[in-house]
Amino acid sequence: MMTAITVGVLRELAAGERRVALTPDVTARLAGTGMVVLVQSGAGSAAWFPDEAYAAAGASVVDRGAVYAGSDVIVCVRPPGDSERLREGQALVGLLNPLADPGLARRLAEAKVTGVSLDLLPRTLSRAQSMDALTSQANVAGYKAALVAADAYGGYFPMLMTAAGTTRPARVLVLGAGVAGLQAIATCRRLGAQVTGYDVRAAARADIASTGAAVLDLAVPTAEGEAGYARELSDAEARAQQAALDAATAGFDAVITTAQVPGRRPPRLVTADALAAMRPGSVVVDLAASEPGGNVEGSAPGQHVVTDRGVTVIGAGNLPAAVPAAASTAYARNIAALLGHLIRDGALAVDPADEIDAGVVVTHDGDVVQPQVRGLVEEDRS
Amino acid sequence: MMTAITVGVLRELAAGERRVALTPDVTARLAGTGMVVLVQSGAGSAAWFPDEAYAAAGASVVDRGAVYAGSDVIVCVRPPGDSERLREGQALVGLLNPLADPGLARRLAEAKVTGVSLDLLPRTLSRAQSMDALTSQANVAGYKAALVAADAYGGYFPMLMTAAGTTRPARVLVLGAGVAGLQAIATCRRLGAQVTGYDVRAAARADIASTGAAVLDLAVPTAEGEAGYARELSDAEARAQQAALDAATAGFDAVITTAQVPGRRPPRLVTADALAAMRPGSVVVDLAASEPGGNVEGSAPGQHVVTDRGVTVIGAGNLPAAVPAAASTAYARNIAALLGHLIRDGALAVDPADEIDAGVVVTHDGDVVQPQVRGLVEEDRS
Repeated sequence: MMTAITVGVLRELAAGERRVALTPDVTARLAGTGMVVLVQSGAGSAAWFPDEAYAAAGASVVDRGAVYAGSDVIVCVRPPGDSERLREGQALVGLLNPLADPGLARRLAEAKVTGVSLDLLPRTLSRAQSMDALTSQANVAGYKAALVAADAYGGYFPMLMTAAGTTRPARVLVLGAGVAGLQAIATCRRLGAQVTGYDVRAAARADIASTGAAVLDLAVPTAEGEAGYARELSDAEARAQQAALDAATAGFDAVITTAQVPGRRPPRLVTADALAAMRPGSVVVDLAASEPGGNVEGSAPGQHVVTDRGVTVIGAGNLPAAVPAAASTAYARNIAALLGHLIRDGALAVDPADEIDAGVVVTHDGDVVQPQVRGLVEEDRS
Repeated sequence: MMTAITVGVLRELAAGERRVALTPDVTARLAGTGMVVLVQSGAGSAAWFPDEAYAAAGASVVDRGAVYAGSDVIVCVRPPGDSERLREGQALVGLLNPLADPGLARRLAEAKVTGVSLDLLPRTLSRAQSMDALTSQANVAGYKAALVAADAYGGYFPMLMTAAGTTRPARVLVLGAGVAGLQAIATCRRLGAQVTGYDVRAAARADIASTGAAVLDLAVPTAEGEAGYARELSDAEARAQQAALDAATAGFDAVITTAQVPGRRPPRLVTADALAAMRPGSVVVDLAASEPGGNVEGSAPGQHVVTDRGVTVIGAGNLPAAVPAAASTAYARNIAALLGHLIRDGALAVDPADEIDAGVVVTHDGDVVQPQVRGLVEEDRS
């Protein structure tokens, strides 16, 4: 008789992380297919999913130790700080960010844990779309970025006509038109702002135009890179782009920046010069804010900084965590789709010939098997 | 030769008050008509209007003492705590809230200061609409209430269709469909929420329907009062309404309450029972939150409270102050329109026969002249 696979859900411990890898909804779906689901008590509470809802969905609510002890597959949003508790043959599935932290991959391989990272999903593959957590979380981030900008701005986003006169709509600039940028554009437009988008990639400019927003044209060369990301610009290109951007930025009431390059420091798009030229009361929201720096000079993750000139700079590095129910709901669906793909005949089985597996499976059978990550681990060792 | 009238602008000192009574924009307009404008240094800074902008608009930026010493008319948002510095013949124009604080009117009358309160404008008079600060500020409050609710809510307001599935739009209930309620409805609808409105007045229900929102029908009697406000319900009516509302409220993800009765404690619309029946993660924003209580049981001005059941209750009693540029811009236009009306032949002149003057002029020539306020002052004395 086949034993059912057991999926465990950990409570996220990273500061400010309010998401959870499985929602009660998706838990019920997995339990319905015969999986056993163990949920750490309190795992969903910061996203407003109480223990009782998981229990009602068919999960067992247990302590952290029991999740580690009893699970075949542990699902998480961010890598758990106590991942050394994983043992041979178990799998860890989440946004493990192995390009930035190859050390975790090395340790998982040494412990013979199968590490699966949604960061590395081949995003252009259409059958992988339902698993695309980077997209689902960027969507949440873009939506929330618009709310954060509108909330911090001292004026109206929409144009309003009243008996005492008309107010012009806020002028919003969105830099970077990937998923997050396009959703930020859409949400700012919903709120009635006059939105302009910018991206170094020509294809993304067409996406901006398709939302009905204006496209900022800096008359600098485009920078199409691999897999839909922007390539890095040459120094001369970057200087020309920056000078033109600095000049354009000053005219906006709110700027939302969303430019990321996987595994690299985010590009600097809003300089101190640009900030100094903006009007008092304008707002800049940096979705790329991170410890090594973000898209905006002086932004810091989780902080609101007001410059001498009265410009509010918001370092918004983890906005999905600030819309925890929506972000967790989407993420859990991605996890469920990935588990549906990876679990073959009642067990997690890796098929190196499958494009999805080749992308997301970072470690297996004691080895770092994902080529990009393996390269980084080998670099670390040499 | 006629001396130009001097208008003074104080910095607001109330906690959390970020508005300013005149903006640089309107200052330039007044200066252009020959008025002298004195602005207290820093008066606009919390609304992102720097001293330099007022200076550029033709104002003199001075200290508080100089505003009191040199002004014929002092304009404010909320009554200054140091109004005893006003002297005979000066005028104070603002939202003096004399129905709640008749003591200020008594003191202004004793000091022979002309007190003008925009609270008491006859709002149904069409030529007074450009002066209607309650409307302009309620508009700001309603807009911001929608943002506050969306920001506190853990899910999406709009429906989103993605590769991993569809999310349903948030269900929002707006209680009270005056200016603030209607603007909250409009802004929540802009954001893509599925909005339902409720008001005890039949006319307001038609207004809700005209926005495209659903109208909550509790099958209880309507309560049309004077001047477009709701009248108070009888005890039996109130009980029936409350029981029906409690039952309806539980089905919503976000509730925004905006019910005010001038000069009275706001009606209690969301009870502890209703809060207990709402889902974890739902959000209630109380625009009527005030020291004596608001529309929501347990709301406190300026506070976010999370109930045992995971419902966030936000006491949002002064939302216009949280959108200070928009609120100040609209307010300053109202003030300018009112000054344009009251200043006759280069001086503030009260015409008791004019409907607007009869409404807004609270004290003049040593007397409390506004009938409603005079009644309250006499009650206080007896």
